Amino acid sequence: MSSPSQRPAAPRIVVINPNSNAEVTAGIDRAVEPFRAAGVSIACETLAEGPFGIESQRDADAVTLPLANRVTRSDAEAWVIACYSDPGVHVCREAASAPVFGIAECAVLSALARAERFGVIAIKDGSIRRHLRQLRELGLIGRLAAERALNMSVAETASGTGTLERMVVVGEALRDQDGAGAVIMGCAGMARHRRPLEDALGVPVIEPCQAAVTLAIGTLLG
Amino acid sequence: MSSPSQRPAAPRIVVINPNSNAEVTAGIDRAVEPFRAAGVSIACETLAEGPFGIESQRDADAVTLPLANRVTRSDAEAWVIACYSDPGVHVCREAASAPVFGIAECAVLSALARAERFGVIAIKDGSIRRHLRQLRELGLIGRLAAERALNMSVAETASGTGTLERMVVVGEALRDQDGAGAVIMGCAGMARHRRPLEDALGVPVIEPCQAAVTLAIGTLLG
Amino acid sequence: MSSPSQRPAAPRIVVINPNSNAEVTAGIDRAVEPFRAAGVSIACETLAEGPFGIESQRDADAVTLPLANRVTRSDAEAWVIACYSDPGVHVCREAASAPVFGIAECAVLSALARAERFGVIAIKDGSIRRHLRQLRELGLIGRLAAERALNMSVAETASGTGTLERMVVVGEALRDQDGAGAVIMGCAGMARHRRPLEDALGVPVIEPCQAAVTLAIGTLLG
Amino acid sequence: MSSPSQRPAAPRIVVINPNSNAEVTAGIDRAVEPFRAAGVSIACETLAEGPFGIESQRDADAVTLPLANRVTRSDAEAWVIACYSDPGVHVCREAASAPVFGIAECAVLSALARAERFGVIAIKDGSIRRHLRQLRELGLIGRLAAERALNMSVAETASGTGTLERMVVVGEALRDQDGAGAVIMGCAGMARHRRPLEDALGVPVIEPCQAAVTLAIGTLLG
Amino acid sequence: MSSPSQRPAAPRIVVINPNSNAEVTAGIDRAVEPFRAAGVSIACETLAEGPFGIESQRDADAVTLPLANRVTRSDAEAWVIACYSDPGVHVCREAASAPVFGIAECAVLSALARAERFGVIAIKDGSIRRHLRQLRELGLIGRLAAERALNMSVAETASGTGTLERMVVVGEALRDQDGAGAVIMGCAGMARHRRPLEDALGVPVIEPCQAAVTLAIGTLLG
Amino acid sequence: MSSPSQRPAAPRIVVINPNSNAEVTAGIDRAVEPFRAAGVSIACETLAEGPFGIESQRDADAVTLPLANRVTRSDAEAWVIACYSDPGVHVCREAASAPVFGIAECAVLSALARAERFGVIAIKDGSIRRHLRQLRELGLIGRLAAERALNMSVAETASGTGTLERMVVVGEALRDQDGAGAVIMGCAGMARHRRPLEDALGVPVIEPCQAAVTLAIGTLLG
Repeated sequence: MSSPSQRPAAPRIVVINPNSNAEVTAGIDRAVEPFRAAGVSIACETLAEGPFGIESQRDADAVTLPLANRVTRSDAEAWVIACYSDPGVHVCREAASAPVFGIAECAVLSALARAERFGVIAIKDGSIRRHLRQLRELGLIGRLAAERALNMSVAETASGTGTLERMVVVGEALRDQDGAGAVIMGCAGMARHRRPLEDALGVPVIEPCQAAVTLAIGTLLG
Repeated sequence: MSSPSQRPAAPRIVVINPNSNAEVTAGIDRAVEPFRAAGVSIACETLAEGPFGIESQRDADAVTLPLANRVTRSDAEAWVIACYSDPGVHVCREAASAPVFGIAECAVLSALARAERFGVIAIKDGSIRRHLRQLRELGLIGRLAAERALNMSVAETASGTGTLERMVVVGEALRDQDGAGAVIMGCAGMARHRRPLEDALGVPVIEPCQAAVTLAIGTLLG
Repeated sequence: MSSPSQRPAAPRIVVINPNSNAEVTAGIDRAVEPFRAAGVSIACETLAEGPFGIESQRDADAVTLPLANRVTRSDAEAWVIACYSDPGVHVCREAASAPVFGIAECAVLSALARAERFGVIAIKDGSIRRHLRQLRELGLIGRLAAERALNMSVAETASGTGTLERMVVVGEALRDQDGAGAVIMGCAGMARHRRPLEDALGVPVIEPCQAAVTLAIGTLLG
Repeated sequence: MSSPSQRPAAPRIVVINPNSNAEVTAGIDRAVEPFRAAGVSIACETLAEGPFGIESQRDADAVTLPLANRVTRSDAEAWVIACYSDPGVHVCREAASAPVFGIAECAVLSALARAERFGVIAIKDGSIRRHLRQLRELGLIGRLAAERALNMSVAETASGTGTLERMVVVGEALRDQDGAGAVIMGCAGMARHRRPLEDALGVPVIEPCQAAVTLAIGTLLG
Repeated sequence: MSSPSQRPAAPRIVVINPNSNAEVTAGIDRAVEPFRAAGVSIACETLAEGPFGIESQRDADAVTLPLANRVTRSDAEAWVIACYSDPGVHVCREAASAPVFGIAECAVLSALARAERFGVIAIKDGSIRRHLRQLRELGLIGRLAAERALNMSVAETASGTGTLERMVVVGEALRDQDGAGAVIMGCAGMARHRRPLEDALGVPVIEPCQAAVTLAIGTLLG
Repeated sequence: MSSPSQRPAAPRIVVINPNSNAEVTAGIDRAVEPFRAAGVSIACETLAEGPFGIESQRDADAVTLPLANRVTRSDAEAWVIACYSDPGVHVCREAASAPVFGIAECAVLSALARAERFGVIAIKDGSIRRHLRQLRELGLIGRLAAERALNMSVAETASGTGTLERMVVVGEALRDQDGAGAVIMGCAGMARHRRPLEDALGVPVIEPCQAAVTLAIGTLLG
């Protein structure tokens, strides 16, 4: 991830992982690695003040001000908040002079360009309500096919064993029972499963960090 | 514009101008030029069978099959239909094996990531009905602030004299009277006005060809 | 079917079957036969340029300009486009001086006058996406109970054996599982099943060609 | 108007004017006269129990049960409730074995077949709230351009002097300021102004009694 | 219940049971009894002209004018119409100088303050259509999880044996299969089951008469 | 305001002013004073950690965790968050065992029981975007007539001179130009103007703290 001393001349996107789990940040970094080919600098940071994982509304609300403080430092031409609950995007937009992108919002917008209706794979059932509330706020819920959860423990998804298999099962339900024409991975840090999942499902699969970095790149190059 | 002989190894986006006006294609080419820095090939083509301009439903319907025929040739990893009426996107999606992006749809999705509500600057009043129909079809009309037309003649916009000034006036009305937090240039080929217009309005201004190429790049790099 | 030489003094509705299958045109003619009692001339034509059946977006887009060319000839006081995908209605409205009715749109509007929510019987699953897109465009999707497909081969529906029985099964699912208070036959040319299906289901069954001719008659007599 | 002794063999539509003003019934009778050419019997009746005019919610609620009682007599193959507030349509549908059509609902559905968005000319401002409530109930308010009132006294509209002129002014505002592509006359009994108003405005003008009789004819002939 | 002679000095809410079943009125009186602690007078009345139960649209329409006549007497500072179909609320609002509350509308509004989406327990399947129509009219149907019916006979619910058990089964389906975060008892007179049902389901359970009296109290104290 | 030592036996509502301005808390206390007649204890507290006023997204986000910490103390049977941006309601609902009410949400729900469409008087233009976002999230924006701002300085509203007069002007615009049938005071602490404003406008005026306390009382008494 980036060190402040090597501030590049190329336009710079800073992706902030709002939880303090550096493993997740590393996963995000791998997710966006191919986008560095676009000639922009993409720095992935771990928010020191963040909880180890964002699993509740309290976790989400706990990071809003630290995120806002970070983006006031103005060392980026675009910011990405890399948590599928999009915590703090509104306060960050107020605080930052550069554009701020939430990965959930960007994933949904990208999915809308690929299919009539989209499905979302959540990690836990408990997050779905929060996601639906955001979709209603965005006025985009009319094109949601459904959201379904993996309901795996953190240990299980971390080990990775069986995660892809479970994602395929849930993705097939979204595609066949709910009518989703595209599927969003409703989490950060699992980009390595994107392509195998897309191959298995035969419909576009959106990785949210990549979706947000894509839109961020668009504002830098245009 | 691209020549078929120099087919690059880099992933290739083909942007098709559905009208037969090579001047417009040249303008589109200039619009997407900065995006070539992203390490992808972007070829801009003129649709030989297209009318000189797409100003009516007939014009839009006339290009659907020629576009579909073009995209069946499979020499691109992503296609962009570069007319703000998004003619033929459905049939092209049926025909193509690669993703197909319409510039109007992509412009709206990009605007949604930047503002609560967006406005659109149309060239002519007569196009607004067609655009509204598409927004309803997309389920995105709830976040439209308003669409307003320049109502300039083709000669006037071609000459360029006064176009930016008129865009600023219309953009200010969208921003101040209609509450638009972002403004879309509802046409292809006027990218040179994007930045001055954004500077004048103080809100994000979306150029639709750039918005579509951005989303296309996202599918190539991910 | 009509011959151009016997142009009647009575106001004239021309129903255009956009596919080139004269059997279907004959079925449409039988569907609208009872409406000739209304004192209007109703001519049913086969579009020579049409594909043998309209089963894809390409099929639908292929007939838009031939339809527009036909309606510019101005030999009708009202036009009906007799395919449940309503191909070309927008360009025909632009081209014609007389009103243009699409049978899908008219079927839905008629169903809304008969029930809180309506169901649609499609021939094939593959058409449903296209129909939903139109309902969203029309802003009428909120009152759709569901659309379900017969999924019979063309040979099967042509032979007629078992078609009504399959329609009853699908119609019962729409009525009982989806809550449809009226059912639309989502195709042209099967009007002979309308009354038996209505008797079997006990809810209004809408035949789309009849629905469109009804609204066309309304504009001629008023 | 019909006398019960001459019950015709032709299928029979009964149009019920829910107010007790026989002048209005006569106006409705003239409105539907051209539709008798369709080979159906159309009887226009005055509801004896009705108030002299329906101008309030109380007026509308006062006629629901008398209307339901009337339609239980089963001497029609289709019923039309001829008041633009559609009083009693739900209870009449429960009570009648034949279809029941409300003129406001039918006018809106007919307008949707003619234009992207429709406008309504009300007699009085006080009725608009009632009409909007019904449009919301029908799920059709998304395509309303606007409703505007004539705000003329009963005496003024009865005399007829100046009514058409005022309708043209209001209709032009609906068309030009609100974007209505079709205009509904939001009252019964003024059919004589339909064609001149349509000629003056250059957009389709819908007379609601004619719209309802049209849909009723459709159910009789099909 | 109240006698007109003992008109209290305290602000007075009159709750009108629109059916003529005094048992139901007694049940409503017990439902609102705890709210008398709020220092307001709450009188529960039986509408003499009402049917014994309101089970059809005719029943609902039959009480509109008697209700309007009652509320014109002006002996209350707030009125509650205590039937889950909210019969006559519009005409009563026109007739009364004091606020008029329908229990269904108030129950839904209260539920919206407690949960993302709400479910409704109806007595009979036949009422659901009427309730959905009202939710659409109110513009609140987007947050309905589902409505499900007990489908018990009047005798069964009157005896009470098994009613709570059945409510728990239906409530669990609303909660678990439909995603309801709060449950409305879609009837008057069963308040005694509210707390046991809430304890069994573990989500808020709304009793509609209490919801309406609550909002009425708000207008008296403010 | 309450002292912790006198914890009453009566059910207890705690109203938390999320800003640290004790003057505002005193105003809220006066607003809810009449509701103590309902036999419940209502304690109004100042959030020590709050900013002096909540005027930005940062101000709103700054109080979410302090509010959540407060409501975990479980010394209330119902909580009210007394700021018209409803900061922290979601995290407080997660944290508290008792119901949590936001004053903006409750004001809107109360307004919906009084009028077809409601208007909101904001203090500053800058808050309107935040309020609209919440209305969209709640799925209730369809019944908003409009929101308009007083745009007075804090000093001006504090002094009170001219505040009511300005509210009347804005309220009249909401009523006459926007069609609002009820008006919400979009702020806490100005309850003293509620009744004069209602008298001036002739439509219901909702004070949000009173609206929230009303719904809280409902959950305590039922």
